[in-house]
Amino acid sequence: MVDILHRVGVAGSTTEKVYEAITTLEGLSGWWTEKTTGDTGVGGVIQFRFVPGGFDMKVVALDPGRSVRWEVVEGPDEWVGTHIQWDLYQDGDYAIVLFTHEGWREPVEFMNHCSTKWAVYLMSLKQLVETGAGTPDPRDVQISNWH
Amino acid sequence: MVDILHRVGVAGSTTEKVYEAITTLEGLSGWWTEKTTGDTGVGGVIQFRFVPGGFDMKVVALDPGRSVRWEVVEGPDEWVGTHIQWDLYQDGDYAIVLFTHEGWREPVEFMNHCSTKWAVYLMSLKQLVETGAGTPDPRDVQISNWH
Repeated sequence: MVDILHRVGVAGSTTEKVYEAITTLEGLSGWWTEKTTGDTGVGGVIQFRFVPGGFDMKVVALDPGRSVRWEVVEGPDEWVGTHIQWDLYQDGDYAIVLFTHEGWREPVEFMNHCSTKWAVYLMSLKQLVETGAGTPDPRDVQISNWH
Repeated sequence: MVDILHRVGVAGSTTEKVYEAITTLEGLSGWWTEKTTGDTGVGGVIQFRFVPGGFDMKVVALDPGRSVRWEVVEGPDEWVGTHIQWDLYQDGDYAIVLFTHEGWREPVEFMNHCSTKWAVYLMSLKQLVETGAGTPDPRDVQISNWH
């Protein structure tokens, strides 16, 4: 089992603001994909749709201002059954985001792609919370022929 | 042992051009850090210096237009002894870059940071080869309070 790890710091912000951006339809559609629908409560399922496809995430756990856990319940084969873990903490003027996409069965090339693409989306999350405007799909930064 | 994986595609380019950008002092200083010195041949050591620190990489293997392997011989404790592997292939109009920073002893928070930062630098590499201008340190994109 292999994991994708990332860390960004949102300047001049709080963990509460980042938490809002990853737990509300308005927040998620402001940095990840504009086509975000569903139920963001514990046990609910959120549908994320992108130009190249999409996934459904079940909300497994929510700890306000501290952590969020999703399970991928629909999407590419490599993703189904994996988990996304968000951990937040405050470090002075920065809200720190620790991100893990865990439980990949093997390090296929698609995992390389997803790792880089997650980083680009996390930079969009940082930008959204810092400035009020992110770059969600379909306005996202393209990293390759795989979007 | 855990690895950082990434993948970017350089549009309208060739693996030869990407290879040049990762195996010459001029190329490396155009996307990673302006303070790049040393010997880029097999067995040589390249010194990379950044605002927050630096590392020395020994060039372990070179396969023109296809792959490059470095060993970290000086730098942060977590980095020393790890390897950077670059694999390149052509996919139509795109030069694909598969990147692995392998052999981390454990998934510490610094690894999360380095994973995201590598993605940002790989986007700088892509930009350099596509447009002629990257954003190397000290003009690099800041991702957090850790630079």
